[in-house]
Amino acid sequence: MPLTSFPSIALALIAMLASVQPRMVLAQTLAIRGATVIDGTGRAPLQDAVVLIEKGRISRIGRTRDVAIPRETAVVEAQGKYLVPGLMDANIHLNFVIQLETMIKYEQRYDEIAVEAAQIALKSGLTTVFDTAGQRAALVKARDAINAGKTPGARIFLAGYILGFTGPLGSDFRDPAVLGYLSKGFAQRVKDTWEEGIGQELLWKSADDVRPVIRDYTRKGVDFLKYGGSAHGPWPAVTFNFLAFSPRAQRAIIEEGHAAGLTVQAHVTSIESLDAAIDAGVDIITHGDVSGIDTPIPQATLVKLAQRRIPVSIIPATQRYLDTERELYTRYPPKVGYAWPQFQQLSRINQANMIKAGVNLLLSTDGSLSNPVLVAESGRVPVDPASIGEGHFNALLALEELGMAPMEILKSATSNIARAYQVDGELGTLEPGKFADMLILDADPLHSARNYRGIHCVIKGGVVVDREALPIAPLITAKAATGN
Amino acid sequence: MPLTSFPSIALALIAMLASVQPRMVLAQTLAIRGATVIDGTGRAPLQDAVVLIEKGRISRIGRTRDVAIPRETAVVEAQGKYLVPGLMDANIHLNFVIQLETMIKYEQRYDEIAVEAAQIALKSGLTTVFDTAGQRAALVKARDAINAGKTPGARIFLAGYILGFTGPLGSDFRDPAVLGYLSKGFAQRVKDTWEEGIGQELLWKSADDVRPVIRDYTRKGVDFLKYGGSAHGPWPAVTFNFLAFSPRAQRAIIEEGHAAGLTVQAHVTSIESLDAAIDAGVDIITHGDVSGIDTPIPQATLVKLAQRRIPVSIIPATQRYLDTERELYTRYPPKVGYAWPQFQQLSRINQANMIKAGVNLLLSTDGSLSNPVLVAESGRVPVDPASIGEGHFNALLALEELGMAPMEILKSATSNIARAYQVDGELGTLEPGKFADMLILDADPLHSARNYRGIHCVIKGGVVVDREALPIAPLITAKAATGN
Amino acid sequence: MPLTSFPSIALALIAMLASVQPRMVLAQTLAIRGATVIDGTGRAPLQDAVVLIEKGRISRIGRTRDVAIPRETAVVEAQGKYLVPGLMDANIHLNFVIQLETMIKYEQRYDEIAVEAAQIALKSGLTTVFDTAGQRAALVKARDAINAGKTPGARIFLAGYILGFTGPLGSDFRDPAVLGYLSKGFAQRVKDTWEEGIGQELLWKSADDVRPVIRDYTRKGVDFLKYGGSAHGPWPAVTFNFLAFSPRAQRAIIEEGHAAGLTVQAHVTSIESLDAAIDAGVDIITHGDVSGIDTPIPQATLVKLAQRRIPVSIIPATQRYLDTERELYTRYPPKVGYAWPQFQQLSRINQANMIKAGVNLLLSTDGSLSNPVLVAESGRVPVDPASIGEGHFNALLALEELGMAPMEILKSATSNIARAYQVDGELGTLEPGKFADMLILDADPLHSARNYRGIHCVIKGGVVVDREALPIAPLITAKAATGN
Amino acid sequence: MPLTSFPSIALALIAMLASVQPRMVLAQTLAIRGATVIDGTGRAPLQDAVVLIEKGRISRIGRTRDVAIPRETAVVEAQGKYLVPGLMDANIHLNFVIQLETMIKYEQRYDEIAVEAAQIALKSGLTTVFDTAGQRAALVKARDAINAGKTPGARIFLAGYILGFTGPLGSDFRDPAVLGYLSKGFAQRVKDTWEEGIGQELLWKSADDVRPVIRDYTRKGVDFLKYGGSAHGPWPAVTFNFLAFSPRAQRAIIEEGHAAGLTVQAHVTSIESLDAAIDAGVDIITHGDVSGIDTPIPQATLVKLAQRRIPVSIIPATQRYLDTERELYTRYPPKVGYAWPQFQQLSRINQANMIKAGVNLLLSTDGSLSNPVLVAESGRVPVDPASIGEGHFNALLALEELGMAPMEILKSATSNIARAYQVDGELGTLEPGKFADMLILDADPLHSARNYRGIHCVIKGGVVVDREALPIAPLITAKAATGN
Repeated sequence: MPLTSFPSIALALIAMLASVQPRMVLAQTLAIRGATVIDGTGRAPLQDAVVLIEKGRISRIGRTRDVAIPRETAVVEAQGKYLVPGLMDANIHLNFVIQLETMIKYEQRYDEIAVEAAQIALKSGLTTVFDTAGQRAALVKARDAINAGKTPGARIFLAGYILGFTGPLGSDFRDPAVLGYLSKGFAQRVKDTWEEGIGQELLWKSADDVRPVIRDYTRKGVDFLKYGGSAHGPWPAVTFNFLAFSPRAQRAIIEEGHAAGLTVQAHVTSIESLDAAIDAGVDIITHGDVSGIDTPIPQATLVKLAQRRIPVSIIPATQRYLDTERELYTRYPPKVGYAWPQFQQLSRINQANMIKAGVNLLLSTDGSLSNPVLVAESGRVPVDPASIGEGHFNALLALEELGMAPMEILKSATSNIARAYQVDGELGTLEPGKFADMLILDADPLHSARNYRGIHCVIKGGVVVDREALPIAPLITAKAATGN
Repeated sequence: MPLTSFPSIALALIAMLASVQPRMVLAQTLAIRGATVIDGTGRAPLQDAVVLIEKGRISRIGRTRDVAIPRETAVVEAQGKYLVPGLMDANIHLNFVIQLETMIKYEQRYDEIAVEAAQIALKSGLTTVFDTAGQRAALVKARDAINAGKTPGARIFLAGYILGFTGPLGSDFRDPAVLGYLSKGFAQRVKDTWEEGIGQELLWKSADDVRPVIRDYTRKGVDFLKYGGSAHGPWPAVTFNFLAFSPRAQRAIIEEGHAAGLTVQAHVTSIESLDAAIDAGVDIITHGDVSGIDTPIPQATLVKLAQRRIPVSIIPATQRYLDTERELYTRYPPKVGYAWPQFQQLSRINQANMIKAGVNLLLSTDGSLSNPVLVAESGRVPVDPASIGEGHFNALLALEELGMAPMEILKSATSNIARAYQVDGELGTLEPGKFADMLILDADPLHSARNYRGIHCVIKGGVVVDREALPIAPLITAKAATGN
Repeated sequence: MPLTSFPSIALALIAMLASVQPRMVLAQTLAIRGATVIDGTGRAPLQDAVVLIEKGRISRIGRTRDVAIPRETAVVEAQGKYLVPGLMDANIHLNFVIQLETMIKYEQRYDEIAVEAAQIALKSGLTTVFDTAGQRAALVKARDAINAGKTPGARIFLAGYILGFTGPLGSDFRDPAVLGYLSKGFAQRVKDTWEEGIGQELLWKSADDVRPVIRDYTRKGVDFLKYGGSAHGPWPAVTFNFLAFSPRAQRAIIEEGHAAGLTVQAHVTSIESLDAAIDAGVDIITHGDVSGIDTPIPQATLVKLAQRRIPVSIIPATQRYLDTERELYTRYPPKVGYAWPQFQQLSRINQANMIKAGVNLLLSTDGSLSNPVLVAESGRVPVDPASIGEGHFNALLALEELGMAPMEILKSATSNIARAYQVDGELGTLEPGKFADMLILDADPLHSARNYRGIHCVIKGGVVVDREALPIAPLITAKAATGN
Repeated sequence: MPLTSFPSIALALIAMLASVQPRMVLAQTLAIRGATVIDGTGRAPLQDAVVLIEKGRISRIGRTRDVAIPRETAVVEAQGKYLVPGLMDANIHLNFVIQLETMIKYEQRYDEIAVEAAQIALKSGLTTVFDTAGQRAALVKARDAINAGKTPGARIFLAGYILGFTGPLGSDFRDPAVLGYLSKGFAQRVKDTWEEGIGQELLWKSADDVRPVIRDYTRKGVDFLKYGGSAHGPWPAVTFNFLAFSPRAQRAIIEEGHAAGLTVQAHVTSIESLDAAIDAGVDIITHGDVSGIDTPIPQATLVKLAQRRIPVSIIPATQRYLDTERELYTRYPPKVGYAWPQFQQLSRINQANMIKAGVNLLLSTDGSLSNPVLVAESGRVPVDPASIGEGHFNALLALEELGMAPMEILKSATSNIARAYQVDGELGTLEPGKFADMLILDADPLHSARNYRGIHCVIKGGVVVDREALPIAPLITAKAATGN
């Protein structure tokens, strides 16, 4: 007998079953009944719909009156609610947690941190995330554990580490003076486990000599590649206007990635690095909205991006966030380096121009986990608005502020990303045959992007997620986290 | 009545006349009689020759028996000696003196420092130097004062500052922490007077937006352009494997330089930056022998350089110097950054390969003035072997160690450079019509490169230089220089 | 014929004569007529008085009706005005200018800086200053030049440098990391010229071994001695609660000072260092109002100070200044070290308690010259309220805020200081026989301490000071001072 | 049946029993037969002796022929061997492990580190150690666990932390810049758990206000008190010539300590701090052999120490160690601060003078645990010669080098220390009634101090120690310790 209503206790029951005996639950069928379905393809919403899920995939979508729900099917009643594809983040960092104490204390537990982040992501509606830089081996372990159903979490696709970048103790991320406080052994282990031989030293090599290194790296369980089109500059005088790999080395990397069946993306932060990456033929541009402090991305470049349909991940920030940051920087001006507010303001201009130019945008946050204790110490707002679990909601709002059409906003966080990463065969929209990753929202997200926050239920692979239980064993975000 | 012998007192007399009344002396004629002339063209030496000089230029060269010396001609007797073109340094820094105390103390006197350096250069046989980076306005002042005969010194051709680089207080040269010890006013003045708006910020611009900035800069009295093909990386984690201007921005700079009638060279320090500069079409590659720490420049690149006859300035170091440096670095290993000995050893391998491949090489030192007091403090050898006045002698020796043919060594320090900088119409060889810039050496430089040190007499523009008097008013190299 | 009125042009004339031919002017007689004389002894003011000055000293003071003004006497008409002794600062630093660029640029000119400071002091009513720490040789030179009439300026009495302290590049004043930016030669010269062998190394010696060093130092032209009773702590973790010389070493220093006819004072910054200095028998306690961050000076100690009549120099700060500092520290909290506002607030409490306890207080500022450009950079108020020329006016106001009686305030800045330094035979009050150092004020300073700012005329040694002309050749306080 | 020989297997058996069932073993009686007993009182050695042990204490000592061994007594055959009291270290730091990674990783496990150190100490013949500075609560926990027989280890007497000193992240031990790399939470926890309110802030207080703080501290399970007579100075410009507590505050601390039944010692590092501590009436002087870099401790002070029989702990270093250090410092001269070799050389001179003057000396090492991995990184000798387990052997050798009489050397490491710490009622000599803490040595220590290394057997409280098993669960000294 189908459930005629769907109290939260039933939800919890399903979730419990899901976590205890995932296979059995996957074998079951599930129906979501009565919601308005916004399928992420751009098609008009379908009201009063039924979505049937079998073996973790969508088997049918139609009007309630048209679709018969089979016996033995658990039914989620969703009248008056909205069903959208599970959200995605095109650029996230599940275990890029580089506060020194954390690195030392949890040196061996970066996989647990990645799982923690993936669970927070899932809890907040991100059913799939694309990790573009982190500790590769730990990410692989976390991804495989989630895929094997050993622990819940967002689906993870991962690049491992950024080709051509130093690890988190290197000059791309820190003043090298930090090494004076650490043992050489620790520093070397960090370098080895993060860079794995594909770090900044790769920039010394000729394009030809880069190839075999990339080839090896493609065999290490990564899902896609990301390389440094531009550099940090590096610390403490970060400027982001240096280039990392030369154009011909970029082409070599892209060719090797494609030969291995992987998409390839470029980290860019300046007008020239953006243009070089486009011409090199990348599949995705990472945070392509950054162009420094004074000059917006030229119109010619925007046209090129739009015409070639090159997906560009961007990091939209709300005006409220920009205002807060500006105030912080005014109060505590940095001694060295450019002020973030200038960067961010220019990025916003670029975002607006990209929307106008019709560039294929992918929502992203560049987010990582925020330790609430450290955030409190920093004198910043209670929760870092870019932190995993929060950032994508803010980014969706920011796109709305920028005037993007509601349906385009949804696509930028779902189908656009799936297509860019070439996983649109199974993910990104609500269509029969695809994985049943979806959110039930209380209110219409096309009416206001704020409504993405009103998550009634997260379903991943056809299973209702027990959001209350996540994260299961937090290290970084535990309230008692002391310095971590 | 011609002088039948040439005692040093007579030399001094001529020099005195030259310095006191340069025009009258230029009006005179001078003959050098009896030397073996090695004219820098590659032609075989001419023994027992006479070189006639009129109005500062060579009027005739021939065998003693063939050439009549006009009356009223001062004769320099040079039997048994060797006459070669005045030496050149393709990459020198006359006023790039960035020790903090010096910068503060002599903030307003960088022109005097440039003159001091040009006088030490001249004294040591460098009749022409190409300054590839320094404080432009001061260099222009020094060059113009020397050209106007107001003070003696090597001929100066200058690039001003490196396009795309920070000034000496910026992150290309120092840990930005230094700014914490300085007033903002001083830091800003240094930035303004060195970078003049063509510094690292230029790397934010699109190739098109770079053009007008370059155009303006070509009108500031510079003789050629130099841009950052690669970057420092920057301090304190200098790696030199980052790129600065993108290939298309490089092409824009080269086109603007050529349109203004200037040669354009690129600072490169890695395999990829070298290749990019070649393809962009530069006229000269600066220290093209640097390729980092582990990979020599590929053969394909060397062939490209040779076939296209692209002049490459290199910084040859003697084995003795390399050994000393290695020992110093072993004793005082740097906490951060790569060890110089590795860089230098790889450069030497590249130098040898370039010689074999027939690349058109230009001798250079990248040298600047060394304060003897500071050198003593540093625990280094009494005189920095790369310092102006010393460096080129060591570089000539190093080329010999590397197996370069004696005649090629001479050309690398004279005619090759003049041709690369497109001033070979008047400089670089001993041929009628050219400026009478030459050295009388005691022994045959083709026999041993050590013999370049045995300078009997320096003649510039037909005037015998009073070497004892140089430098006239030293600031940096004064023995009493205290900390400077 | 005596001048019946005293236009400023006449003042300037006298000043001009004074500076050109000081002896002739000193030979003249001067009369100030009609002012209310507050003589600094504590006696009631004398209204409508005449002060006669001969040969630089006061010859007579009396009612206008009682005193006949001799012929040939220049008369300053001062009806309605107030005459007070020239002010003194018991703790000032005429050439303790330690901004790095200044130190490098003016390494050889610390005497000129001292003169500049003494002129600014004189201009602002300080006819005598007690320099308790600076570059001794330069101070001696400045003092002697002023005493010899070669240049105007406040009378200088000097201690040279603080016994037991590092110089301005040492750890008592700076993070030693600064040495990494300087040549060893410069650092050594600074150490040698400031410390002169009486620096922090003296703290290694036994009390007996300290004696001969002190004895030598007393012969170097110093007017009194100052030693470190407490230390800085040092930078960057300044805490001020360490002790420097041990009690028995303190007694040794005091004995040696007295044997040489010099007064001896102790730098103290904590309750225990204050008590130890009292018991050791010092003549003056320097900034005895400092006791750190949490505990006020105990009543027992205050009673001891009062009963033994030990002069204590203090640094009173206005509430307005304290508020400004607190706000600055709240906005820019220091990463390391105690917050000044806490120190200053506790000092204020101690000051109030000392006034109540009847301690013999000496006004002081601990002031030095402020470079207006650097002050502007620092984001602080336009002029540092403790800078020479400003600080004493603020300190006088602060004493008033603290409830000190008006007559006591005047004495704290005049006769108390003269007596403490044992120069009250010639200075500190307006009495016949004493040097004619005095100020003509527009309004009654006993009515409001603000009226000390209203200086109509400064007379030093019987000569009217041309205040407009001061400072004559400013280095530090020049408006165009660029970073200095 | 008594064992007629004592193979190591039997030793191991006893040890095993001891560790498994300590009480049963303590109930047993033990006899050591045939050794030469050097009892630590200074009496002549007793050859062919029997030592009877009952219930953990020595019950009888006599010639083999005179003493009947009771039935049921385990007998250790020790013919040809030497029996001495268990060694002591008067100044050790069981858990003062301040390498940053260690502090972060083992923040909660400082008790385990203390146990580890106490076990290494016991293994190397130290049956009792006096910990003069560490994390108090963890030390108390370790001491109590060992005393309760829960784990083996040297007997621990502890001071907790040094009164008046900062904790290991404070300026007494580190450049405060380190705080920039740490969370405030961690820094605060370190401060709180190490300083416990008795840190450097105590130096702000008056002598009277110090008393109640000390009184509280005496109730926290500490066995004695140690205060800062001198300070570090602090980092990075350590000079050690500053004073911490004033003489009268020192007297207050001593009185409070005595009132609580505790001995009180002073950390001194300069001539004046040593003298002040003597006069204040301390029970023990800590590392009284340190007097800086240039002046030896005056003879008058040495006489005072000798006459008043004040125990002085010293840190004797072998000439080999001094030579190694000097070489290291010559090769890697520190940028800031004094060179250790100078300090150590002067300490050695003071040690020799103290021996001559008959000062009552206590052997100490100031040692702590050395992480073998970090030592290897530092380029120093394989094991730090001052590390726990090694240091006391080197110190004994050094005393011999200095010419101390062999019997005095033994006393300095046993009975002198017990008497100084007022525990000589039960410890320090081999006499009936005292705890059976002793070493069986293979060769005569009076013949050569090297023979202290030849430990055949360690007995503590009448139980043979299973040295092979120690340390039981190493954290710091584990071979695999990676950076710790």
